[in-house]
Amino acid sequence: MPTGVKITIIGAGSAQFSAGLVRDLCVNPGLHGSHVAFMDVDAHRLAMVMRLAERLAAELKTPLTFSKTLDRIEALKGADFVINTAQVGGHAWTEAQRSMAEKHGYYRGARLHDLPQAAFFLDVAHDMERYCPNAWLIQSANPVFEGCTLMARETKIKVLGLCHGHYGYREVANVLGLDLKDVSAQMPGFNHWIWMTDFRYKGQDAYPLLDEWIETKAEAYWARGPRSFADNQMSRAAIHQYRLFGLMPIGDTPRMVGWWYHTDLETKKRWYGYLGGFDSEIGWQQYLDKMTENVQKVEKAALDETTPVSETFKPVQSDEQIVPIIDCLVNDKTGLFQVNIPNRGPIIQGFPEDLVIECQGVVSGAGIRGVTVPPLPAKLMAGAMIPRWQRAELTVKALQTGDRDLLLLELLYDQRTRSLEQAEGLLDEWLSDPRNEAMARLFKHKQK
Amino acid sequence: MPTGVKITIIGAGSAQFSAGLVRDLCVNPGLHGSHVAFMDVDAHRLAMVMRLAERLAAELKTPLTFSKTLDRIEALKGADFVINTAQVGGHAWTEAQRSMAEKHGYYRGARLHDLPQAAFFLDVAHDMERYCPNAWLIQSANPVFEGCTLMARETKIKVLGLCHGHYGYREVANVLGLDLKDVSAQMPGFNHWIWMTDFRYKGQDAYPLLDEWIETKAEAYWARGPRSFADNQMSRAAIHQYRLFGLMPIGDTPRMVGWWYHTDLETKKRWYGYLGGFDSEIGWQQYLDKMTENVQKVEKAALDETTPVSETFKPVQSDEQIVPIIDCLVNDKTGLFQVNIPNRGPIIQGFPEDLVIECQGVVSGAGIRGVTVPPLPAKLMAGAMIPRWQRAELTVKALQTGDRDLLLLELLYDQRTRSLEQAEGLLDEWLSDPRNEAMARLFKHKQK
Repeated sequence: MPTGVKITIIGAGSAQFSAGLVRDLCVNPGLHGSHVAFMDVDAHRLAMVMRLAERLAAELKTPLTFSKTLDRIEALKGADFVINTAQVGGHAWTEAQRSMAEKHGYYRGARLHDLPQAAFFLDVAHDMERYCPNAWLIQSANPVFEGCTLMARETKIKVLGLCHGHYGYREVANVLGLDLKDVSAQMPGFNHWIWMTDFRYKGQDAYPLLDEWIETKAEAYWARGPRSFADNQMSRAAIHQYRLFGLMPIGDTPRMVGWWYHTDLETKKRWYGYLGGFDSEIGWQQYLDKMTENVQKVEKAALDETTPVSETFKPVQSDEQIVPIIDCLVNDKTGLFQVNIPNRGPIIQGFPEDLVIECQGVVSGAGIRGVTVPPLPAKLMAGAMIPRWQRAELTVKALQTGDRDLLLLELLYDQRTRSLEQAEGLLDEWLSDPRNEAMARLFKHKQK
Repeated sequence: MPTGVKITIIGAGSAQFSAGLVRDLCVNPGLHGSHVAFMDVDAHRLAMVMRLAERLAAELKTPLTFSKTLDRIEALKGADFVINTAQVGGHAWTEAQRSMAEKHGYYRGARLHDLPQAAFFLDVAHDMERYCPNAWLIQSANPVFEGCTLMARETKIKVLGLCHGHYGYREVANVLGLDLKDVSAQMPGFNHWIWMTDFRYKGQDAYPLLDEWIETKAEAYWARGPRSFADNQMSRAAIHQYRLFGLMPIGDTPRMVGWWYHTDLETKKRWYGYLGGFDSEIGWQQYLDKMTENVQKVEKAALDETTPVSETFKPVQSDEQIVPIIDCLVNDKTGLFQVNIPNRGPIIQGFPEDLVIECQGVVSGAGIRGVTVPPLPAKLMAGAMIPRWQRAELTVKALQTGDRDLLLLELLYDQRTRSLEQAEGLLDEWLSDPRNEAMARLFKHKQK
């Protein structure tokens, strides 16, 4: 009979996420008896999450206990697992940083928000070294790639990054009309930068089926247009990337690869359909609206005491890998998952062992062991992997050292930068914004 | 008593280069008895070089023999050393490729000429595998970095790239007013992308002297302006690079690093002085004029039988490392040189062993052994070395595979590229130019 563990959620105010996790705990008996500590900076949302969790556990008759706190240290003390899902400053600050960059000529922003976000991850990991040094850190907010690499380099904490992007292979299979139970796929790379190195249907290479679809059905598919902002997996851009690099980009990858698909809204529409993809002004607004709608739905469920919350959060294991992974680690079950872990081995050849890469991992009581990846094609390495690695190195080293030059270099390698002055201008404004005080402190040595 | 070796010069029509080499042979007794085979596609210039060489050897009473040929195979047969100094299509074709790129929005060109040039190097190396498989190939025409890497990967020939750029440290010392005999420096990296990792004056770190010069004398130096197109070593751009990356860029490096110094002539002037640096329309024209002037001077010396040619080519060893290196290899002397060789060891950590890097090499009868380099600073790696490596990989893989996508990607990573169409447009025009038939044949599979 397991006695349970303490699972802490940082940024627990996302009811969708937190209640979903509690539901997964309910359906994994190996973790019954556990305690979940919710931590957030928003007391109102925290109370709602707490209420949802208590009702869900009661309805499902699951022995779980809960606590809530505004105090990160209190939440971390004695934790066995810490899940960090927080977004510093919320969507508002992310959007403000985007607008700031747009003013300087960076259409749809320059991902500056990744920096305070990753710095915050490191703060949490440092706190963990003091208050729960043996706990696993499960990083589920972005940037997973840079953030996990930073934490893995700067702390002794066991770091695991998780994402949903790899499920994109299912969308490939769906569009091709393949029954998912007969499909397998492997998608290593960096988070949001993963490539289908193997794709099988009934045991046979399924790439020829994809090629045939491109040849005979893709144009008709694109003519219908995307159904939602998230519908990028089989976009014209994704297929162009497949042709250019030789492997199919999966999940968030088609959104991220190739500045040339993103120069303006018209270009985005050409490559991602009439919404312009996830990251256009149209697609992103749809995403934000969808988030708001979800929040409202969950709030309604929380407030409506007359309807069981288990109708909203059905007692079936979700796609979220967190709880099954915890179950494997705690109860020495063996499972294969898509994980982001340090490249020790190396798992992917050609990259440093202290870079956090995405791969399959065998999880068990022994921990997480990366499944090695055959050498990636030279074309993919030189054309996509090395440049993405270089950008991540600039971010990570900037945060490791507080060297402003590295931020400047990162902007100088942004294809939209037209002059040194443009990059300096954005950097100056960003670092002097009062909301960005933590970054200003870190990058205080301004070299001219 | 040495019996001499056969040294073949491909592209021997440069009288300045060929006669200079003969002069160096005259002053290195260990190589007396050698035979020099001049090969070029220009019979007139070949005849002139032959005459110059014969007169020089006669004047200096040196036992050397010479032959000339338009036939590369004949020149290669039985060679012990092959020096490749040829420029495919000469300056005219290089300039035509530059103009073509300018038309598509690439100010001052897109270095397309490197591609047919490196492909030609590989042709020569392949011929060597048949006709002189044990000979050393000394590559002295550009692109040394990509070209030598390509040959090292695709052939079994012993490849050595040589350049003069590393002597740039002397210019640093001169400007600082240091006596060269008390100065030492180390400058590893990639060819035309080398960084002063160590700089000593009378045994002490001389970087503080550079810092003091920047603080107190640089502005006055810059106000005077450059003396010639080649005067870039202590330019404002070089010092900015030093500040940005933490190490002083040496030789051709300050010309090559940082697109942001090169966006237009005004910007070039700001960073390199009123000539706009070596690579501006002004500086480059000065360079071409200087070349023409040299050719005329050498032609005059060749034709003027009344004046000894040894007055033009004085019997003193030049800065050119070629002959001293051959002397060490042939006669098992030991010397330390600046060489471009495969990164086996690795010599520079973090790069593949089949990439040709620039470093110091101990040369002796045992061959060339690279002197290992301490880890380069993280900032230099992420900010400058990795991106330069990535670009070289695209070039080299493109030439290895004939995959046009890799050329396209290389253009897409050019900071001046504004759209996929722009890159495709230049590539299409370049590949359909009748002068570029070899490249059209190699990249015949055009994927859309």
